Amino acid sequence: MTEQSDRSFDRKSFEALLKRRFFFTESFEIYRTAANWTGDNGGLYDYGPPGCALQANIVDVWRKHFVLEEDMLELDCTILTPENVFKTSGHVDRFADWMCKDPVTGDYLRADHLVETVLKTRLSDVRLDRPMTEEYKDVVGKIDNFDGSELGKLIKRYDIRNPKGDGEVLPPAPFNLMFKSSIGPSTAAPIYLRPETAQGQFLNFRKLLDYNNNSMPFASASVGKSYRNEISPRAGLLRVREFMMAEIEHFVDPLGGKRHARFSGVQHVELDLLDRDTQLAGQSDVRRVTIGEAVESKTIDNETLGYFLARTYLFLLKVGIDKTRLRFRQHMANEMAHYACDCWDAELLTSYGWIECVGCADRSAYDLEVHSKRTGEKLVVQEALPEPSEVSLWVATLDRKKLGPLFRKDAKLVESAVAVLSQSQLEDLRLRLNVDGVVTIETPPLQGSSNTVTIPSSILSIERTKKIEHVREYIPNVIEPSFGIGRILYSLLEHIYWTRAEDSARDVLSLPVSVAPTKVALLPLSSNALFTPVTSRMSRSLRTIGISSRIDSSSASIGKRYARNDELGTPFAITVDFQSVEDNTVTLRERDSTKQVRASLEEAITAVKNLVDEKETWEAIVQRMQPVKST
Amino acid sequence: MTEQSDRSFDRKSFEALLKRRFFFTESFEIYRTAANWTGDNGGLYDYGPPGCALQANIVDVWRKHFVLEEDMLELDCTILTPENVFKTSGHVDRFADWMCKDPVTGDYLRADHLVETVLKTRLSDVRLDRPMTEEYKDVVGKIDNFDGSELGKLIKRYDIRNPKGDGEVLPPAPFNLMFKSSIGPSTAAPIYLRPETAQGQFLNFRKLLDYNNNSMPFASASVGKSYRNEISPRAGLLRVREFMMAEIEHFVDPLGGKRHARFSGVQHVELDLLDRDTQLAGQSDVRRVTIGEAVESKTIDNETLGYFLARTYLFLLKVGIDKTRLRFRQHMANEMAHYACDCWDAELLTSYGWIECVGCADRSAYDLEVHSKRTGEKLVVQEALPEPSEVSLWVATLDRKKLGPLFRKDAKLVESAVAVLSQSQLEDLRLRLNVDGVVTIETPPLQGSSNTVTIPSSILSIERTKKIEHVREYIPNVIEPSFGIGRILYSLLEHIYWTRAEDSARDVLSLPVSVAPTKVALLPLSSNALFTPVTSRMSRSLRTIGISSRIDSSSASIGKRYARNDELGTPFAITVDFQSVEDNTVTLRERDSTKQVRASLEEAITAVKNLVDEKETWEAIVQRMQPVKST
Repeated sequence: MTEQSDRSFDRKSFEALLKRRFFFTESFEIYRTAANWTGDNGGLYDYGPPGCALQANIVDVWRKHFVLEEDMLELDCTILTPENVFKTSGHVDRFADWMCKDPVTGDYLRADHLVETVLKTRLSDVRLDRPMTEEYKDVVGKIDNFDGSELGKLIKRYDIRNPKGDGEVLPPAPFNLMFKSSIGPSTAAPIYLRPETAQGQFLNFRKLLDYNNNSMPFASASVGKSYRNEISPRAGLLRVREFMMAEIEHFVDPLGGKRHARFSGVQHVELDLLDRDTQLAGQSDVRRVTIGEAVESKTIDNETLGYFLARTYLFLLKVGIDKTRLRFRQHMANEMAHYACDCWDAELLTSYGWIECVGCADRSAYDLEVHSKRTGEKLVVQEALPEPSEVSLWVATLDRKKLGPLFRKDAKLVESAVAVLSQSQLEDLRLRLNVDGVVTIETPPLQGSSNTVTIPSSILSIERTKKIEHVREYIPNVIEPSFGIGRILYSLLEHIYWTRAEDSARDVLSLPVSVAPTKVALLPLSSNALFTPVTSRMSRSLRTIGISSRIDSSSASIGKRYARNDELGTPFAITVDFQSVEDNTVTLRERDSTKQVRASLEEAITAVKNLVDEKETWEAIVQRMQPVKST
Repeated sequence: MTEQSDRSFDRKSFEALLKRRFFFTESFEIYRTAANWTGDNGGLYDYGPPGCALQANIVDVWRKHFVLEEDMLELDCTILTPENVFKTSGHVDRFADWMCKDPVTGDYLRADHLVETVLKTRLSDVRLDRPMTEEYKDVVGKIDNFDGSELGKLIKRYDIRNPKGDGEVLPPAPFNLMFKSSIGPSTAAPIYLRPETAQGQFLNFRKLLDYNNNSMPFASASVGKSYRNEISPRAGLLRVREFMMAEIEHFVDPLGGKRHARFSGVQHVELDLLDRDTQLAGQSDVRRVTIGEAVESKTIDNETLGYFLARTYLFLLKVGIDKTRLRFRQHMANEMAHYACDCWDAELLTSYGWIECVGCADRSAYDLEVHSKRTGEKLVVQEALPEPSEVSLWVATLDRKKLGPLFRKDAKLVESAVAVLSQSQLEDLRLRLNVDGVVTIETPPLQGSSNTVTIPSSILSIERTKKIEHVREYIPNVIEPSFGIGRILYSLLEHIYWTRAEDSARDVLSLPVSVAPTKVALLPLSSNALFTPVTSRMSRSLRTIGISSRIDSSSASIGKRYARNDELGTPFAITVDFQSVEDNTVTLRERDSTKQVRASLEEAITAVKNLVDEKETWEAIVQRMQPVKST
């Protein structure tokens, strides 16, 4: 996260509004405020009714835009995942941040944040000389690119200390970001909370392919909670330990340039791109280009990746993101996750700077390959060739009679490890076999937990053989668009927050109708029982046509209740007054313009239905209905 | 779970169908089948596309039936919850099962399951004499009612051993069923995965009441994952370690008999009840009575509890549960959770016996009271009295000048602990104060982690005072209907599974349209490109009107594809043939009757829309459209 905040934005008022209207709150708040509450429970938030509905609506739009529109196969996999799986995926060894301990205070500090914070403080000191200023700025600009030992050197070189107490810190050590637990009564079975939904989708690849009648390409999708045990979370909803993700794994043939059948439908979509070369040159100027041009010029590696960037852009606009505060940034080579071969983030500008909200990575065949190796199960696509073709192949043959006596219980695993060897590996091994008389190959964990086996040439032969092939076999590549729903939700709220010019105390959240928690507020003029039948009738009618409404019959004045519903982002309000009881008419008010019209109850409901379904605009409604002076 | 299985039901074929169509699968299956996979990872399941959609549809019906229909306040709280919270709720100390270890094999066995399994095996032995048979049957019938020491005595008395290896087991020890982890880099911060969504709702009570404009009664609701670290899960989807719950916490004034404003709307609903007295008499005969009678006769304690039992019944019928396999069973006194004062389970009959799928508990004021005591925060409702009334009250006064010097940092906590004392407690304490000169009261954790404080009469006085009250203050009671979505889903699948009489290999899942994963299968007669435009057009039209469809253009015969979609529970199929291309007509088929009609593409889509919206029955469609002979 880089600081490039919008100075006119008043974060304090904004956050006060979100808490006041119960969009969200820190979890276990009554425990936090209780005296003597110790314990590190930052980065955990509960969504109240409007936040919960907003989140559900964003997910709903996401599901329609991606899953339904493209017939994706949605899965719901467990959050609990055994260690073996994350050992294979690389998360046990590599999913870590660098952390420094202050041995005196006992504080744990995230190393990159420590360096960044201290240098920024020094940069704000006017006495700092020009060369140091340049040096510090350079370090801060590249802060995401340093590994643990580099961070350690920076800490030494600049004598960076814990800002609390000014103590020296120990050298950076890796801290794994997965929450660990154990399953069942034996404590010997470690299990983790998933840091992403992706692994469950990869492990089910064969079943998915089968469900899809073996036809390629296809995508799976999952929506659910994931976890990161952050060292010291800050920045509110933007860095949390438990979060909602929506992830797509699009499986594609690696041959033929990873083209996408629907690419032509999006090629004219224009995006603001910040590519790798621009960043390497120390610049941050975006280029606005069509996705067609970007793929053509190889700025974006392939059509499928480009397709999903464009679709992501359209999705973000649909939920109400301000397109002038949205850019796509390419990852630097050393910044990418260990599995990725190209990656672009959709970043949203907030008062905390540019925030990664969607990651769109080309994970290549990494995941399917490693799980296949580890389990000995083939995770491949078999494609019937249009006509049989003669091919020359390296074929490995094992002498089964000798295999059993030599490897006993491991024999089957050795056999499957040999079966999943690629052509280039076989070619390589043949050479070794000829030279050394033995070869060593990787296997799934064997008895005694070894991961390799040595096979003598008396048992294994590798020969070039001619073969008629009817089927082509390949491991698909994976393009993964991964959405952080909470980050999108928070950024969206910043983007659509404003204050009425005539009264700075009157905040408004201009949420689009599609994601607004409640579509219509129903406001009886007072708590007079006279109004109850009309309000109830409207409430029932709206429920029947699937439009969420909420009756606000509190004793506050109508003006106050309009203001409250503006803060909740409710786009429309229907007010029931004495005239309503007489002639069955009500007023319909629109949130952003505060304009009102008067119409019969039935007309008002039809108008709301048209507005929600986007069949009519508010301007058209105002034109054709009887105007009312705003209160 | 008691065994009272449906003998005609073929569980093997049924489960094969669910796996074949990827309703669900064991999680990490490719790792389980890999050799040398050790590790206890039972009770974890992934939902494939149809299971995931079915689950989402059940939750959707639930949300409309409960949350939207009654304006409940939905929350999304974190799964991670710090130890303090569960210490207060009682889960750290009491949320446990009894477990026996076999010291030789290292097996951990759930004590009640061990006794039950062994005695059932002995009961199946024809040589067992009459008295022993009666004794064993009696124990098995009451198996849910024994605590650890009683189970230990049974194991001794009947010489019950581990069926695997026949070894003696150690006495039962409690095993806490919560998954434990730690948060942040310090390992000193224990955190748990919630075993229910309820606590998050209680902790947010004040914010919820505020959001509801301080008006009572109201309900909150949450849908999300919860966890139980079962000792040794069995019974497939019915006993899992990670599961989806949907819970309602209805907050109600304890005075006035917990009446419910909408009770009259459900009082004629008839339920099969199995009450406590019947069970105590060793019977299991249900009584079919209206909910009105049951509340009137005090079989069910109060209107609000009765209201939710009736609403639960209607919900279960709506998603397709067979009402002849549904009963409501009252908990025995010693079977209830530690917080409950009355509890009824909706139980569904499956091949595993009667399964608890919904629990409907009156939790009284337990939760709000304990959290209030622990944190010193008032969790109460303040209700304006219609007119001020003079009341005699016990009032505690603390001498603040002396309080500070004596209790230092704890002074504020002592003050809040005194402030939350009830009238009856104050009356009691006054006596003590007069007799002993000091009183000891419970507090939130103090410095040095004590939970009580002793206050001398030099600082505290308790007097009877007359006071004009304008406000009545009370802690609401909570009625909690709690739904296990996975258990409902599984039981539903058993209830609607059948096999066509003419061909035992043809399985059908008669899922109601409202919850069916896909509403319409679109079947081109063959893979001929001629059909593609028509199929695509239909797919788009259906998507636009929000009806989920799926194109099945695989090369299988139409008959095979009908059979496949019967197994997926898809209620309708539209077939595109050569005639379609010529005259724009298609055939529309209904799953259960296999009857078909021929109509124009537009008519067919309108018919499906009417069927999905329940505006027209299939019988009516058959009447008014042109019949086709079934294939």
